Amino acid sequence: MLSGENLQFLKNSLTFWDKLTKQQADYIVSNTSLLQYRQKEHIHSGIHDCIGVVVVKKGRLRNYILSDEGKEVTLFRLNSGEVSVLTASCAVESVNFDIQVDAEHDSDIFIIKPEVFKKLCAENIYVENYFFKTLASHFSDVMAAMEQILFLSFEKRLALFLINQSELDGCEYIRMTHESIANHMGSAREVVSRMLKYFQKEGIVELSRGDIGIINREKLERIAE
Amino acid sequence: MLSGENLQFLKNSLTFWDKLTKQQADYIVSNTSLLQYRQKEHIHSGIHDCIGVVVVKKGRLRNYILSDEGKEVTLFRLNSGEVSVLTASCAVESVNFDIQVDAEHDSDIFIIKPEVFKKLCAENIYVENYFFKTLASHFSDVMAAMEQILFLSFEKRLALFLINQSELDGCEYIRMTHESIANHMGSAREVVSRMLKYFQKEGIVELSRGDIGIINREKLERIAE
Repeated sequence: MLSGENLQFLKNSLTFWDKLTKQQADYIVSNTSLLQYRQKEHIHSGIHDCIGVVVVKKGRLRNYILSDEGKEVTLFRLNSGEVSVLTASCAVESVNFDIQVDAEHDSDIFIIKPEVFKKLCAENIYVENYFFKTLASHFSDVMAAMEQILFLSFEKRLALFLINQSELDGCEYIRMTHESIANHMGSAREVVSRMLKYFQKEGIVELSRGDIGIINREKLERIAE
Repeated sequence: MLSGENLQFLKNSLTFWDKLTKQQADYIVSNTSLLQYRQKEHIHSGIHDCIGVVVVKKGRLRNYILSDEGKEVTLFRLNSGEVSVLTASCAVESVNFDIQVDAEHDSDIFIIKPEVFKKLCAENIYVENYFFKTLASHFSDVMAAMEQILFLSFEKRLALFLINQSELDGCEYIRMTHESIANHMGSAREVVSRMLKYFQKEGIVELSRGDIGIINREKLERIAE
């Protein structure tokens, strides 16, 4: 059973809550789990998994695609208060692709069973609307990622990634391995290391064990423009 | 005003038609145009265009993204009876990316004004549902394109493209320039020409002015596997 604070968090995140009947709200509450995942732990793998609708309470989730050869490309990330419906794709027809979800940091997440959403989507137009609007916003995120990958130089993409990451973390020091940056970007570790070394030579970042420090943000932003 | 045959076509394509009130059906009919586009003619450019929901009567439409430098990548194509809602993105929130649409062949298309869909989505749950389901199926198409681009070798992608194209056209001879294949694939003409010459050397295709003939489909399919 969800505690008062957790219930309030869920109500704030699921903007259709006011439009639920008492019975529907109870139905969600009694079919929602609050789970803890450690950093890098795998949460969801593809369409056959279908764990349900995910609401991030704390932490950050990485949504990505994975090739047969193990190549990864990050599509978008979800932070506290954000919701993924792609993890409940079995609840709707017409979504037929595989998405992978990992905890990027230690994360607490609510998972609402997919059959709950399926039932409520059929009963309540506001729930269905919410589901599809969230889907549309994932679609927009994926298109943005795709345009970056296809149309921007690697230099620009890496600059954008570092800026974005330091904003997400609220810190000029990015604590990530080159390998994990490569996985986000669908690139190879060597390529990331080479470009970071170039940025270092240009006085834009400083590299130390496990850390990338942004020391000339203005220059980095000029590259990303 | 739409003729009987055209009206019937529209009814068959828009699967929510039976759920419309007489007034709603009339509202669509009186706000739908049937337009003809020549091969390669531009139909829709990005979010600020928002021409409306498109139903293909005859021909084929290419939906693609376009970089600032003019690089193109095809996301999906629409054939007779198929519908695009991305061309009516102003009718819904949460879709905020630009898509380009060209006529790939001479095409006859119905265009339903975006404000009609906006109004009917608000009034009629079946219309809204249809809108979002179609959006979800575009999303699935885009993910399939993205996975191909990111994860498959160019050789495999070109083999898949040729197979797919010959199936679409119902013909072993593909009448397309290397340039236009490159635009579909987000590649460069030289890269396409080089790989086609390799396929020719392997006895898979024969190349002549403006034509690519598949002469060993089995071998092509083995590459695409």
